[in-house]
Amino acid sequence: MELGTVIGLAIANILVLIAIIKGGNALIFLNLESMLIVIGGGCIGAPLIAFPIPHLKNLISIVMKAVFVQEFKNAETIKFIVELAQKARKESLLALENVEIEIEFLKKGITLAVDGTEPATIRAVLSAEMTYIKKRHEDGMAILNFITDMAPAFGMIGTLVGLVNMLATLSDPSAIGPAMAVAILTTLYGALAANIFSGPFSRKLEWYDAEETLQMEIVIEGINSILEGDHPAIAEQKLMGFLPASQRSQE
Amino acid sequence: MELGTVIGLAIANILVLIAIIKGGNALIFLNLESMLIVIGGGCIGAPLIAFPIPHLKNLISIVMKAVFVQEFKNAETIKFIVELAQKARKESLLALENVEIEIEFLKKGITLAVDGTEPATIRAVLSAEMTYIKKRHEDGMAILNFITDMAPAFGMIGTLVGLVNMLATLSDPSAIGPAMAVAILTTLYGALAANIFSGPFSRKLEWYDAEETLQMEIVIEGINSILEGDHPAIAEQKLMGFLPASQRSQE
Amino acid sequence: MELGTVIGLAIANILVLIAIIKGGNALIFLNLESMLIVIGGGCIGAPLIAFPIPHLKNLISIVMKAVFVQEFKNAETIKFIVELAQKARKESLLALENVEIEIEFLKKGITLAVDGTEPATIRAVLSAEMTYIKKRHEDGMAILNFITDMAPAFGMIGTLVGLVNMLATLSDPSAIGPAMAVAILTTLYGALAANIFSGPFSRKLEWYDAEETLQMEIVIEGINSILEGDHPAIAEQKLMGFLPASQRSQE
Amino acid sequence: MELGTVIGLAIANILVLIAIIKGGNALIFLNLESMLIVIGGGCIGAPLIAFPIPHLKNLISIVMKAVFVQEFKNAETIKFIVELAQKARKESLLALENVEIEIEFLKKGITLAVDGTEPATIRAVLSAEMTYIKKRHEDGMAILNFITDMAPAFGMIGTLVGLVNMLATLSDPSAIGPAMAVAILTTLYGALAANIFSGPFSRKLEWYDAEETLQMEIVIEGINSILEGDHPAIAEQKLMGFLPASQRSQE
Amino acid sequence: MELGTVIGLAIANILVLIAIIKGGNALIFLNLESMLIVIGGGCIGAPLIAFPIPHLKNLISIVMKAVFVQEFKNAETIKFIVELAQKARKESLLALENVEIEIEFLKKGITLAVDGTEPATIRAVLSAEMTYIKKRHEDGMAILNFITDMAPAFGMIGTLVGLVNMLATLSDPSAIGPAMAVAILTTLYGALAANIFSGPFSRKLEWYDAEETLQMEIVIEGINSILEGDHPAIAEQKLMGFLPASQRSQE
Repeated sequence: MELGTVIGLAIANILVLIAIIKGGNALIFLNLESMLIVIGGGCIGAPLIAFPIPHLKNLISIVMKAVFVQEFKNAETIKFIVELAQKARKESLLALENVEIEIEFLKKGITLAVDGTEPATIRAVLSAEMTYIKKRHEDGMAILNFITDMAPAFGMIGTLVGLVNMLATLSDPSAIGPAMAVAILTTLYGALAANIFSGPFSRKLEWYDAEETLQMEIVIEGINSILEGDHPAIAEQKLMGFLPASQRSQE
Repeated sequence: MELGTVIGLAIANILVLIAIIKGGNALIFLNLESMLIVIGGGCIGAPLIAFPIPHLKNLISIVMKAVFVQEFKNAETIKFIVELAQKARKESLLALENVEIEIEFLKKGITLAVDGTEPATIRAVLSAEMTYIKKRHEDGMAILNFITDMAPAFGMIGTLVGLVNMLATLSDPSAIGPAMAVAILTTLYGALAANIFSGPFSRKLEWYDAEETLQMEIVIEGINSILEGDHPAIAEQKLMGFLPASQRSQE
Repeated sequence: MELGTVIGLAIANILVLIAIIKGGNALIFLNLESMLIVIGGGCIGAPLIAFPIPHLKNLISIVMKAVFVQEFKNAETIKFIVELAQKARKESLLALENVEIEIEFLKKGITLAVDGTEPATIRAVLSAEMTYIKKRHEDGMAILNFITDMAPAFGMIGTLVGLVNMLATLSDPSAIGPAMAVAILTTLYGALAANIFSGPFSRKLEWYDAEETLQMEIVIEGINSILEGDHPAIAEQKLMGFLPASQRSQE
Repeated sequence: MELGTVIGLAIANILVLIAIIKGGNALIFLNLESMLIVIGGGCIGAPLIAFPIPHLKNLISIVMKAVFVQEFKNAETIKFIVELAQKARKESLLALENVEIEIEFLKKGITLAVDGTEPATIRAVLSAEMTYIKKRHEDGMAILNFITDMAPAFGMIGTLVGLVNMLATLSDPSAIGPAMAVAILTTLYGALAANIFSGPFSRKLEWYDAEETLQMEIVIEGINSILEGDHPAIAEQKLMGFLPASQRSQE
Repeated sequence: MELGTVIGLAIANILVLIAIIKGGNALIFLNLESMLIVIGGGCIGAPLIAFPIPHLKNLISIVMKAVFVQEFKNAETIKFIVELAQKARKESLLALENVEIEIEFLKKGITLAVDGTEPATIRAVLSAEMTYIKKRHEDGMAILNFITDMAPAFGMIGTLVGLVNMLATLSDPSAIGPAMAVAILTTLYGALAANIFSGPFSRKLEWYDAEETLQMEIVIEGINSILEGDHPAIAEQKLMGFLPASQRSQE
């Protein structure tokens, strides 16, 4: 699980919680209806109207991947691919069959190669797969950005409903305060959902997409090198071109 | 009818209704004038000033298509076109005359082909039709986005009118609450119209446009294959190129 | 006068008027100072600072054209040009001298042709004229969009001035209500100016520009056909290419 | 001084002044601290943090040029350049040495020509100068747009400070009104600065940039014509091509 | 340290401080919880969720560089490079080994040259370094812009929490004022963080990036000239082409 996301979520939520608890009325901050309007209406209902169901189904797994992922270790990936190239050269392509490969995308490519698929076809399959994965990420970002707009909007809707309810029965002045407090709660929930969750998550997904794309490009180029029987040193040099200067010198 | 839209509309509306009903004054939430200002002013009047009447006439049918449509089944469409290609090859183009075709756009192309129209002309007619359909979708999205801006604006106009009315007669303090409640209602209506209807509908129309465009491209390419007498297997391979990898392997 | 604009303006204004009248204090909604700030400040003063005077002079005539124009009847225009082509072919170019021509742009081109101007020069003159007309439309849209921003801004300025005035003399609580009502009025005026007038007008101007551009392109191509002595049937076919499929089959 | 800017500034400011004076408390609208926060903080402080000092130094002279400039008289400029071309042809390039030239950019070019600089070098020098002038205009617009954002933001900051001050000492209810009035003032100042000054000024600078660029292009082309010894009639025709049709026929 | 940033920060902060102190309750403006929510939540927590940790680590050093840097003296840099070129020509490349070089990027290039690296490789290394540095600046701007959005959002969240707390315990009317003041404070902190710090800082970083990029381009071209043994006068002419006309004539 990525450290930054965990720490960030912890800091943001704990600081808000402290402010709530220090007020001495923490329980008033829990209100089921307000939650239902923001989460059920803004984060589930409106997206269901706006996006097709399959896109929404992908969202959770994509967010999980993007938000809780470890950083990509491209230099290590390159080293591993170079080792594969070495093995394929010394022994044979078939020798790669039993190597354990963690990166799903690399595994797919190697399996195709071991199965004797045409290099051009492998490249086409992997490129199509990459396009498809990127499309899913874009769909995910679109939904997260939509929720970032909708959560505060439904927060305001809930607050407006609460205000109308309160104003309609203004007989007891002592009840105004708590009723108003509950009305404002929905706006608070909407702001929290947009600014602690969907908004920052969409940003990290953007970064994750760039990182995974880079990894997939390295893998495609690497498998190409293996298939063409490049000398491992040349393969390494080719792949290192994908990394920024700083990461190249690090390892 | 598309499940997502139905469920989404149900969730969003029911959750807002629950909050209204639990307030115990559900009837105060019904106000004809407020509705007239938001719907009549923001969703009908302003769009009439801003857009030509023919564009607005299209809107309802387009929204119906986009919001309540089943998902496009491109793999099935391809299978069906391949069957047509097979039939046309074994028997003759004229044999397609009596085949029942559900997809309007495909039917139009096949009819033209059976009538002996020049292939180049068929392609030109279908391409022009596709451009025209996409233009209508874009007009529809433009109007929906305009309404998404105008509904809250007219909601605010109604609330301002209500506030001025209330403030002008501040003699009876006990009347302030209900009068204020009514004033705020228009803002609530505007927010509901924009965030539960026009906004999400415009988003789904965007997706629908992409899906229908893909279908039309498949049909144009498919009819091309039929007219050129491609072997069905080759026709299928060509058409499958339009699908993402995942959908190709599924069927 | 275009029906949509008339109906739209009527609906939007009448619905707001109903809400005003039903409040029972219609007269309080008339306030000269508030009007002066929004109209004089936001719709006249600020645009005078922001745009050169000649651009502003054009605005009124452009808005009139765009908002109250009949729909363009391109199929009829084409039919008329084809008739001109027929006449010019049967008789001579000079025979077009006495034909009554409603469309200003077409008249200009025919007059140049009858005067014996070089075809290349006619085309250059008409193209330059088209560019100039489009530039004027763009200037008009820019000013309308600027007013759509400025009207609410000056509405807020007026309300702030009113609030400060009211708060400075808070001695008589019974005067707060009406003073506040007057203060809020300026915001209402700003919202009406932006959302019933300048905003929707700018949108219709955008559509009008597209339509008039299409008409001018048809005219330029048509005069070209006449000058080159195209057979009327060929001229018609060329010009029909400018229309969407639906309009072509209609006539 | 340009009439539009003067009239626009007069109208906008006078109308706001009338609303202030009619309130009967004009003096309360003068508040040094509020002015300091909006002007010192939003219009000077924040821009100093955001932009390098040399860019800010240019701003005042650019705004002066753009906002108070007469309209560009391109037809007259062309006539003048054609006269120069005539003189250079009849007498010699050196004869232009003593001609009085008002337009700075033209003067620079003629001086270079009279000094015997290579035509290619003159063109390069003038093009570089034009690029540099346009860059300064863009810097100016960027700063004005930044101020248009910052002035209301600092207006809000001042109001928030005022509100906190007022709320902290809520003992005397009769003091609430005036204290609140002063707090709101800063927001008013911010709105005035953004909507009467920086915002519209940035817009006019945009127009001014387009106009001066056109003039500079005419000058560069004109000096080119003079250096190549074009016949004055041909030079005029070349230069007229820069003007819209309407301005060409006017003179 | 850049003068503009220092003066700007001083002006903006002092003017706000004066308004705070003149209110007579300066201490109420210090509130730890409010600061924690805005700084901890909006400026640290949310960015941690949204961006990967290495990007955030770079931020502080980048901001320091961009905000407190002296203006770039490109004319001096060019003069210095020309001197290096002279020395390399008269003596040899190795003579540059002991020259003291302040500009890090130039030092790196010269060191590579002295070490006998291939010119093509040096160019590739420096270009990659430049791309990497620009990428870091862009990451920095993205984070600053994100904070400019998040700081006011968390300001609002804090104010909403405070309002709910206050409204829930409305028993003692005399406590409303101070409680409300504290609630509003968080919004004030958010506005200050966004408008005095992150927003203007992001703008200056944009300018800094353009300036440093120009310097790096001059250095790359200069080292190229040195390696190719250009005559110092020609090297100077080449490098001067990077400067705007005004800076060229100045020195």
